[in-house]
Amino acid sequence: MMALDPEQTAEIEAARAARSETRRPSVPELEEILFEPLPVLDHGFVRVVDYMGDDAAVVQAARVSYGKGTRRVSEDRGLINYLMRHRHTTPFEMCEIKFHVKLPIFVARQWIRHRTANVNEYSARYSILDKEFYVPAPEHLAEQSSSNRQGRGTVIEGPQAEKVLALLRADSEQLYDHYLDLLNTDDAGDPIDPERPALARELARMNLSLNYYTQWYWKTDLHNLLHFLSLRADPHAQYEIRAYAEAMLDVVARWVPLCHQAFQDYRLNAAMLSAGGLAVVRRMLAGETVTQPDSGLSAREWRELMAVLGRDA
Amino acid sequence: MMALDPEQTAEIEAARAARSETRRPSVPELEEILFEPLPVLDHGFVRVVDYMGDDAAVVQAARVSYGKGTRRVSEDRGLINYLMRHRHTTPFEMCEIKFHVKLPIFVARQWIRHRTANVNEYSARYSILDKEFYVPAPEHLAEQSSSNRQGRGTVIEGPQAEKVLALLRADSEQLYDHYLDLLNTDDAGDPIDPERPALARELARMNLSLNYYTQWYWKTDLHNLLHFLSLRADPHAQYEIRAYAEAMLDVVARWVPLCHQAFQDYRLNAAMLSAGGLAVVRRMLAGETVTQPDSGLSAREWRELMAVLGRDA
Amino acid sequence: MMALDPEQTAEIEAARAARSETRRPSVPELEEILFEPLPVLDHGFVRVVDYMGDDAAVVQAARVSYGKGTRRVSEDRGLINYLMRHRHTTPFEMCEIKFHVKLPIFVARQWIRHRTANVNEYSARYSILDKEFYVPAPEHLAEQSSSNRQGRGTVIEGPQAEKVLALLRADSEQLYDHYLDLLNTDDAGDPIDPERPALARELARMNLSLNYYTQWYWKTDLHNLLHFLSLRADPHAQYEIRAYAEAMLDVVARWVPLCHQAFQDYRLNAAMLSAGGLAVVRRMLAGETVTQPDSGLSAREWRELMAVLGRDA
Amino acid sequence: MMALDPEQTAEIEAARAARSETRRPSVPELEEILFEPLPVLDHGFVRVVDYMGDDAAVVQAARVSYGKGTRRVSEDRGLINYLMRHRHTTPFEMCEIKFHVKLPIFVARQWIRHRTANVNEYSARYSILDKEFYVPAPEHLAEQSSSNRQGRGTVIEGPQAEKVLALLRADSEQLYDHYLDLLNTDDAGDPIDPERPALARELARMNLSLNYYTQWYWKTDLHNLLHFLSLRADPHAQYEIRAYAEAMLDVVARWVPLCHQAFQDYRLNAAMLSAGGLAVVRRMLAGETVTQPDSGLSAREWRELMAVLGRDA
Repeated sequence: MMALDPEQTAEIEAARAARSETRRPSVPELEEILFEPLPVLDHGFVRVVDYMGDDAAVVQAARVSYGKGTRRVSEDRGLINYLMRHRHTTPFEMCEIKFHVKLPIFVARQWIRHRTANVNEYSARYSILDKEFYVPAPEHLAEQSSSNRQGRGTVIEGPQAEKVLALLRADSEQLYDHYLDLLNTDDAGDPIDPERPALARELARMNLSLNYYTQWYWKTDLHNLLHFLSLRADPHAQYEIRAYAEAMLDVVARWVPLCHQAFQDYRLNAAMLSAGGLAVVRRMLAGETVTQPDSGLSAREWRELMAVLGRDA
Repeated sequence: MMALDPEQTAEIEAARAARSETRRPSVPELEEILFEPLPVLDHGFVRVVDYMGDDAAVVQAARVSYGKGTRRVSEDRGLINYLMRHRHTTPFEMCEIKFHVKLPIFVARQWIRHRTANVNEYSARYSILDKEFYVPAPEHLAEQSSSNRQGRGTVIEGPQAEKVLALLRADSEQLYDHYLDLLNTDDAGDPIDPERPALARELARMNLSLNYYTQWYWKTDLHNLLHFLSLRADPHAQYEIRAYAEAMLDVVARWVPLCHQAFQDYRLNAAMLSAGGLAVVRRMLAGETVTQPDSGLSAREWRELMAVLGRDA
Repeated sequence: MMALDPEQTAEIEAARAARSETRRPSVPELEEILFEPLPVLDHGFVRVVDYMGDDAAVVQAARVSYGKGTRRVSEDRGLINYLMRHRHTTPFEMCEIKFHVKLPIFVARQWIRHRTANVNEYSARYSILDKEFYVPAPEHLAEQSSSNRQGRGTVIEGPQAEKVLALLRADSEQLYDHYLDLLNTDDAGDPIDPERPALARELARMNLSLNYYTQWYWKTDLHNLLHFLSLRADPHAQYEIRAYAEAMLDVVARWVPLCHQAFQDYRLNAAMLSAGGLAVVRRMLAGETVTQPDSGLSAREWRELMAVLGRDA
Repeated sequence: MMALDPEQTAEIEAARAARSETRRPSVPELEEILFEPLPVLDHGFVRVVDYMGDDAAVVQAARVSYGKGTRRVSEDRGLINYLMRHRHTTPFEMCEIKFHVKLPIFVARQWIRHRTANVNEYSARYSILDKEFYVPAPEHLAEQSSSNRQGRGTVIEGPQAEKVLALLRADSEQLYDHYLDLLNTDDAGDPIDPERPALARELARMNLSLNYYTQWYWKTDLHNLLHFLSLRADPHAQYEIRAYAEAMLDVVARWVPLCHQAFQDYRLNAAMLSAGGLAVVRRMLAGETVTQPDSGLSAREWRELMAVLGRDA
């Protein structure tokens, strides 16, 4: 379980207890969970540390207005849907959110590829990493997919699963022991042997594995957050990063409910039809029976199209 | 004078009157002027529309901490100075600010070259621009500089100044009359002649001149704002954009006073010495009398160095 | 007509005449038009000044390979289609192109909103602008659209068109005369009156109108170029910027034909169906007759969907 | 030693052997090493895969000219020095370079924090990583610095060094054995046990340590490359990334010698003096003896200033 030490818990409680008055728009549903760590994976979390703007701020920016959004929610909703549908993305850039995230390094490496965000990561050159590593829950331990080179197939179970998990745990334990040994540091942070040199932290860290947890402050605007979520809350994303994306999607629902709904309708649950796919749909709607060979689509594209249309390939 | 119509004034007043409670850090000195238009040039303004973070947020991000900054202001100041001095820029990206700006188009064209910001501009394809154009105050009407190809020299005065100002005013007036005529729209927004076609707004706008005012929402993080200010609050910047930069610098002083001071000391009033310039300083400190010809520097660089050192060239 | 002075023509000819040997991949179809100004609007142009990469470079980056793309064009095509379809955008960032563009200022203002590009613009602080302004060809002079607030309706013809064009021309002529007068400069670049001060160039330029031409070097990668083209070669884009986008689309076809085809199929001629739109299509494919009122879509969305499906709304 | 397999060597040789004719500017000194892997660390390399532009392209962009740079190298040099000195950065963005880099994952994690670049990394979700891990050369195995929390102190030698290196090697070996075991794959790529499931590649990779090598295509413009080098070729950078920066700095010297020289003079070997530091220098030049306590500088800043001035603190 996600473990905070007493000092961290106290710091979070103090932050949550503080209140101030502001002229800025604020969002009670989001304030409710502000600073609170939302658990992800076995030791990770996402917590909202700050935010700027709300649904009305999107409307306000789209109109370059002097006051708030429009007078009525229904009008705001209509405009937000329109903006989302027609990919007028700049008004969504006018809301900003800042997360504190604890995540395995291999997840951090996928995440960081999204460049349009501000990041401050915990430095293992400067500090010593905690002994926290990710081991998949049994239901997420899966075989290599045979159909998708970068995906998972069936879940591995029984003794074979146990063997894998034991191996992951043992290696991670051993690496951390060696890490402390290289640093000549015991559990309490004291030198193991005062006569022995401690390897530089910036070198010792390289002996840890990619399932070790790191943490960072990550700040981005709503447009780029939604783009991130459209890729990482997608079923093709690796489960471990998807778990973070899903927690953040819930945050978006609290923060900007109208934008969240528009995102569901016009992005997450929408589908892009290619020129060829559109031609097939038009023929089908005209009553023609179309098959893959006479569709002009490759077998793979045909399967993807049939899935979108909810039909058997 | 910057003129807001009664509706705009009412919207701003309503926004200023609203209050809500938040767990987010807030900055009373900035709240004081929130939403308020700070006048710039003859009809322009800058007003802060929203902000995220404070001095402590910079410290918090640099430490990737669970709570606020450090316990003491002096510690926060020391860390912020260190970050600024060593160009650790990412913690400054953790604060964000959003402005509503009204500015002449030729200023907007310089401003927009800073790409790391979010912008929503008033659309003259969609709406009709107001009749507001910039005419320099007499003390800013200056000759072309003879020494600096992109700068101003002495102020133009007397009848010559009057002639220039009259010409600018007359042309701007005429263009707006023609703009309305092309749009077949009178001052009240009604058709001049119901039988006549109105030229598309996206075409009519091209007949306005670059001193016409536009407006936008402009949002950026503190690091990029400071970079913008380091270039635009600089004496080499064109006066008209510098006027905006100076108003925004005052905003920064209210918002994040420790960062503002560090920015003054380590950026705005600091100087970069080249390898060659450093060599000269070292020789001078060793007691040597150095002259431009034996300095290894070009005449221009020598002048720049002497200016930095406060010595006669 | 696009007018180059003899010196410019000579510089371009010299650049076109030069040849060198390179180990880099080069694209003969693009080399053919390298440096050549492709005319756009009445005085504008786009010319390719440099480029990096080809179709194979996209494949090479997707595979992080040691050599070129794959062995066969059909394999490259399949992979490029896959990347485009699944929005794997980073391999397309591995090709880069640099344009020299001459364009009216109001077009430049739309264009510059695309931030992920490198730009160097001709400086009117530093130099004097040429007397070149845009006047629409008669077939592009159109009324304000009544259905679309940011669009054009029917073409304006006859005496009313003549009046508009005459007004645009006369104002532009007058502004340039005044511009030179403010600069105290005659056509030949000499002072009109040696006794009179010349207004600073950075001020004088504000009296020109937005149809005056400027020019810039604009460099971007293929992914961002395609994104730009998907927005600006779209029928909803203003005609004047679309004219540039279409010229650049032809350049893309010469440069990276496989990417160009994939872009046509999976982006330009593709369509995004919303969750609601997909539900309608599924019902129709199941044989149901769906009407707007029972579709769950707004009237506007319904019209947009029917247009995509090639059916009467 | 950096080991390429015969297929990779053949691909590189084929790429190096190819020649084509181009109208683009090309740089013979850079062509000479094009595609060639320049060794870095024990198994890494940097190789230039493509480039766009040269010194003249910087000048050309600064002037927005129709032809090449200026007529004389001395003029180009003067302009480039001026641009670098006054931080006119956009002309340097007009040159672009693409590298193929093989580097340890912990180095990749520092590198990727530079966001203004295009990256395609080898995917360990999709493919199996090679057995290549970084072990420091004995002269780079150093103690934690006692004065600098994120730096190295004295070199570790003798039996203590041997122990550290042995531990790093043994752990890396063991992790790779386990990695193959999890993947149920032997050295030849065949299943170890056809009856046993293979763990998904996207999961197995998490058991490798941060000293394992990855590789990527990395493309950036000259301005951003120089910014990267100013931070990573700096003595405060971790040795392992500095080794890459230094190899790339040599590439810059071949590619754009005038920009390289200006970068040395006005950036790498230049120094920023703060407002307080400048005040001290002025007092010293006026003949005053200044000491830290009466300097107004903190002890740390005083030491940094004295180091810059080449004086004892």
